[in-house]
Amino acid sequence: MTINQLLQKLDPNLPLLEGTFGIERESLRIQKNTSKLATSPHPKALGARSYHPYIQTDFSESQLELITPVTRSPKEALRWLGAITDVAERTLTGEYLWPLSMPPKVTDEEIAIAQLEDSFERHYRDYLASTYGKTLQTMSGIHVNMALSATVIQALFEASDYEDKTKFQNDLYLKIAQNFLRYRWLLTYLYGASPIAERGFLKEDLAHPVRSIRSSQLGYVNHEDIVISYASLDDYITSLETAVATKQLIAEKEHYSAVRLRGQKACRGYLEQPISYLELRCFDLNPFTPLGITQETMDSVHLFFLALLWLDDVENVDTAIARANALNNTIALSHPLEALPSAAPTSDILDAMESVLKHFHLPDHYKGLLEAIKEQVADPSLTLSGQLLAHISDQSLEAFGQKEGQAHHDYAWHAFYALKDFENMELSTQMLMFDAIQKGVQIEILDEEDQFLRLSYKGHIELVKNGNMTSKDNYVVPLAMANKVVTKKLLQEHGFPTPAGREFSDKASAKAYYHHIKKKAIVVKPKSTNFGLGISIFKEGASLEAYQKALDIAFSEDSSVLVEDYVAGTEYRFFILDGKCLAVLLRVAANVVGDGKHTIRELIDLKNQNPLRGRDHRSPLEIIELGEIEQLMLTQQGYSLDSVLEAGVKVDLRRNSNISTGGDSIDVTESMDDSYKQLASQMASTLGAWVCGVDLIIPDMTKKASKEDPHCTCIELNFNPSMYMHTYCQEGPGQVITLKILEGLFPEIRQQ
Amino acid sequence: MTINQLLQKLDPNLPLLEGTFGIERESLRIQKNTSKLATSPHPKALGARSYHPYIQTDFSESQLELITPVTRSPKEALRWLGAITDVAERTLTGEYLWPLSMPPKVTDEEIAIAQLEDSFERHYRDYLASTYGKTLQTMSGIHVNMALSATVIQALFEASDYEDKTKFQNDLYLKIAQNFLRYRWLLTYLYGASPIAERGFLKEDLAHPVRSIRSSQLGYVNHEDIVISYASLDDYITSLETAVATKQLIAEKEHYSAVRLRGQKACRGYLEQPISYLELRCFDLNPFTPLGITQETMDSVHLFFLALLWLDDVENVDTAIARANALNNTIALSHPLEALPSAAPTSDILDAMESVLKHFHLPDHYKGLLEAIKEQVADPSLTLSGQLLAHISDQSLEAFGQKEGQAHHDYAWHAFYALKDFENMELSTQMLMFDAIQKGVQIEILDEEDQFLRLSYKGHIELVKNGNMTSKDNYVVPLAMANKVVTKKLLQEHGFPTPAGREFSDKASAKAYYHHIKKKAIVVKPKSTNFGLGISIFKEGASLEAYQKALDIAFSEDSSVLVEDYVAGTEYRFFILDGKCLAVLLRVAANVVGDGKHTIRELIDLKNQNPLRGRDHRSPLEIIELGEIEQLMLTQQGYSLDSVLEAGVKVDLRRNSNISTGGDSIDVTESMDDSYKQLASQMASTLGAWVCGVDLIIPDMTKKASKEDPHCTCIELNFNPSMYMHTYCQEGPGQVITLKILEGLFPEIRQQ
Repeated sequence: MTINQLLQKLDPNLPLLEGTFGIERESLRIQKNTSKLATSPHPKALGARSYHPYIQTDFSESQLELITPVTRSPKEALRWLGAITDVAERTLTGEYLWPLSMPPKVTDEEIAIAQLEDSFERHYRDYLASTYGKTLQTMSGIHVNMALSATVIQALFEASDYEDKTKFQNDLYLKIAQNFLRYRWLLTYLYGASPIAERGFLKEDLAHPVRSIRSSQLGYVNHEDIVISYASLDDYITSLETAVATKQLIAEKEHYSAVRLRGQKACRGYLEQPISYLELRCFDLNPFTPLGITQETMDSVHLFFLALLWLDDVENVDTAIARANALNNTIALSHPLEALPSAAPTSDILDAMESVLKHFHLPDHYKGLLEAIKEQVADPSLTLSGQLLAHISDQSLEAFGQKEGQAHHDYAWHAFYALKDFENMELSTQMLMFDAIQKGVQIEILDEEDQFLRLSYKGHIELVKNGNMTSKDNYVVPLAMANKVVTKKLLQEHGFPTPAGREFSDKASAKAYYHHIKKKAIVVKPKSTNFGLGISIFKEGASLEAYQKALDIAFSEDSSVLVEDYVAGTEYRFFILDGKCLAVLLRVAANVVGDGKHTIRELIDLKNQNPLRGRDHRSPLEIIELGEIEQLMLTQQGYSLDSVLEAGVKVDLRRNSNISTGGDSIDVTESMDDSYKQLASQMASTLGAWVCGVDLIIPDMTKKASKEDPHCTCIELNFNPSMYMHTYCQEGPGQVITLKILEGLFPEIRQQ
Repeated sequence: MTINQLLQKLDPNLPLLEGTFGIERESLRIQKNTSKLATSPHPKALGARSYHPYIQTDFSESQLELITPVTRSPKEALRWLGAITDVAERTLTGEYLWPLSMPPKVTDEEIAIAQLEDSFERHYRDYLASTYGKTLQTMSGIHVNMALSATVIQALFEASDYEDKTKFQNDLYLKIAQNFLRYRWLLTYLYGASPIAERGFLKEDLAHPVRSIRSSQLGYVNHEDIVISYASLDDYITSLETAVATKQLIAEKEHYSAVRLRGQKACRGYLEQPISYLELRCFDLNPFTPLGITQETMDSVHLFFLALLWLDDVENVDTAIARANALNNTIALSHPLEALPSAAPTSDILDAMESVLKHFHLPDHYKGLLEAIKEQVADPSLTLSGQLLAHISDQSLEAFGQKEGQAHHDYAWHAFYALKDFENMELSTQMLMFDAIQKGVQIEILDEEDQFLRLSYKGHIELVKNGNMTSKDNYVVPLAMANKVVTKKLLQEHGFPTPAGREFSDKASAKAYYHHIKKKAIVVKPKSTNFGLGISIFKEGASLEAYQKALDIAFSEDSSVLVEDYVAGTEYRFFILDGKCLAVLLRVAANVVGDGKHTIRELIDLKNQNPLRGRDHRSPLEIIELGEIEQLMLTQQGYSLDSVLEAGVKVDLRRNSNISTGGDSIDVTESMDDSYKQLASQMASTLGAWVCGVDLIIPDMTKKASKEDPHCTCIELNFNPSMYMHTYCQEGPGQVITLKILEGLFPEIRQQ
């Protein structure tokens, strides 16, 4: 039975590119403004390492390992790597991630072995240190996990003469692994990026820069006596188990190979459950990109991976692999500008890639990738190591590493409020995802457009929609808060202050209500309007005629009209979680302040240049629009867009103070009196709300509030209150909210 | 200090008609098709009497007392009385409510004293039986509770020279009470409706029919030695407390007066907290209306009540009342056709009513009521007792009472699925309210349009929206069920069968998916469409060309397109509550079956005459419309509205089987195999749903379902599933749902 020529038999319409993909990336933590290894322990903010699915420690305490979840495409894997890298960089304090595979100058004493909880893991690392030396372990790289889709495997199986699916799948992946080892020199040529070691790293200095120290015999390799056979799965298992039994290896995982069979804990397991994916371990960090690997590389490797299956089977596998290993070492230790040796069967692998492309009508993108590879083969200076040459200074890449690493770090802090590569989602959801990644709570996006997440931590699962719609609230409470009439009734009954008023669906009843309000400051408004249309305010009370006219106006906008007490004062938003007030925000209507020089139009443009301002809730503040409403506001105040405002003159562009219409956010959590926070918390608790945004109008903040003497009025409760606006404010320090939500959902992640 | 002439001073725009109103109605339970007192105990279905706020037992076990909540208008009070009466009538088995104040022929032995839990209440009833006789206690009537609004009281207080508000309010209500006693003879004249007693009830037969035995000295009155003074509150308290202290009365409540001061348990309490309303106790049951009292009577009494305040204060109150009592007795015992005695100060009270009308510009409705009263004063035959004369047969009203009572009972069973006077609300909410009234769970409608209820039972409060959106579900579960993509993902992960498929937002990806579905029966459909537009079904699998065309069609309707496995079989709705399947429904698309005579248009008309069919979810089934979709369906099948269908030929008028578009409901709960019910329950439980409607497609009901071998596919979970359609079905017995919801919310009301 053979796997040969199976891919060739498949229907060209088969979705060949589908599969599963994951990335693991190691990187050293380096002290800011230096190229010195960090001496700090693994950041506490990253939660418990014993479980963390995204951010782990590798060999040394200062070596982070970033791990993506299993994804459905190379693009998605990179997206998660982007987010996890973003979290890692922004969690570091006074440190950044080293962008190169080779460490900066480092001595054994500077390297602290990772102090993991698991005693075997500590023992294993001690053993590695004594066997290979600690400095060797500081080399970092990227591992890429790849699997074919079940559909493709099934189609291949059906095209084969196998009867046993498990055996078939093992042979399928074993063939790819064999060919990977036979052709990985091409990857070393293209993506090798460890051309030099800093002085003292190698026992003997290299005569010249090379392509990849890490992928050569100077890198992280087993003793040459240890030979694991890839001829068949049986041979593989036998040779690997023998090496462990004879103590040549401390464990199977000490077998360092450029490719690893994956899916089971021990290799013998594959006899029961087949290999489910391959781990490709030969990638140096690409220092030119914050992620250490690009989309082009991922997709090229994907095409390469598929071509390995297109290639014919080879006889004498182990001999072929040994020859290929030698070729790889030669290429790894060649000068970056040296051409590929003529012995390298370059056209075999490139032709196979081309054939896959053509047979399956792959998109032009992959054609372009193959062209680029051919150009790199023709011109070594285009390879990664070729490009790195120019950055070697005084036989060192430390200065370059520091510059690039800090630039990557700065990139993470650009638009710091967002989660990289998930900027299309709502900002509050991005922030919650940031916290989840940081604390090691697993995220699955159930519906991206709907902001629907599933979070899990050690089997504890919580669904979250729009950042704070969770299982912690019962269904009917948010429904009650969504209904203004119901909310008001419940608050009133419990003795909380709300504006007195009534809803009317006919003019006669509304008119008859006049006696109740004739001496009061009132607002007459259509029940549902957002733009201030049809609203009349009588701060001194209304005459019957004026009241009737106001009713006419309001009823012309809506069939239901509210007549409410006018409440003077300033509106504040209190964010309540689980009975505690986490933040208080003052929102100010969109406005500009003159400088005596610029027109209003220019002032708006200037204000909109604030990096906190964006669109569609993807930024903490919104762009101020120049719509009808804004222009009407200006006209009503006697201005036009071309008016030049005198210095210090403030002009409102909106009546409403919503952040979503360009308002300013001012965090007043610290200056707000506790009595108001307590009252707002009580309101939320009275309704039974876990999460609640309480809008209070406070005429005089200097007076203390109490239930008996509230000195404030509640005008609205919000069941899905915005969170980001409390954290990233136009003014004020900002408050942490989403992390509190996460800790509320998962009390077990709270730090002791 | 005086209350005199205060109303006259008020602003005519004052909302004088506002206030609070309640009704209590007594009625005997009578055995069906007889006029014999029921011998059954108080119906068990009515829950616990010790707490019931709506339906109590009066003196005897067979005497129901129906009690409305405190309402904001006479109209609202009658609305609640309508609903409570509806529940009472529909709870009776083989019985109906006696429509007259005077009982049918009854002996002492037939009257069982109510077996209440409270020992004082039992003792009190035994005392009444021995003091007044049991038969006297079977007389039933209506008490009306009325209070002025706080606004009106405040305005009156401000117009007065009082300084103490409590004292003012006591004097205010005392004045109304005094004048009520002075003028209640008018009410006796107008609304007296106990003209005769059945033989044996009175010690001596009456010489002729009268107006009101119940309101005369022959009715339910204290011993003539007991005189309670209304001259002042102090006098009232002193005389009443003395009567109790000297054992003339067993308790204050044994004081039978046509008006009672209310608000405190004991009369001395008014010195601290004022009288808050008056209980007007003099109304005979009006047998011509199911409620025992009409809107016109309520509103007339309301105007009368306000006129009592308009009238001047009187000196020598007790003398005046004694004189008025004598006048009332004369009028009560007069022949119904006899004119009012000239001694009656008729014009005083009518003029006062007219003055109130005019001063406050009351709506024309009240003017009409006063006109009607004047007509009745002029023509005694128009009064209630006058109208009853014609129904007296052989000196008995038993035959009339039986006829009217059974008609009222039948009226309750007309449109039996609805709750009388709340038909504007959603049917499921009406049904839940029926259950709540029956079981004594207090209802408050927080937002009628929004179907938002607050239910409470002994301090335990639950909010309910749309019949089954409650605190028992957590917030995120219904949100997950509302999202089809999320629901499907969660069900699939837990191993439940859902149609395989994918959502696409671009044609290229959708096309690339072809390989996955090319041999399968599939449906290609726009993500959101309700009318079958843009849907292509390939039961035998699609060619690539046909698939692409289907995509073109679907994408022309929506930017998102679903490609799903086509699932053949019949769709059933499983109603799941708290992990148990309560009902299974088969819904069949709107259709008609021919009879060889009628056109399709006529067949639809005939089918629509079913009383179960109505509109807007206010009936168990919907009217079949003759819209575009129905006509298109007919055209596609080669019919027109004028086609005459052969006998037995069934023609569908819709593709979809929703009840809301005229579909038929068939209850198959009993015939559905338990294995499917269990599977559906497991699906709901997996998502954590308390209430859930599970839609399963089952190709062959004879096969047993299991999780491993489901033999069915879940196509949707519904988070606010319709309830009424399971209870009132086109075919099948129907299942109780809303009561189970109520018992789930209030386990304490479940019967042992």
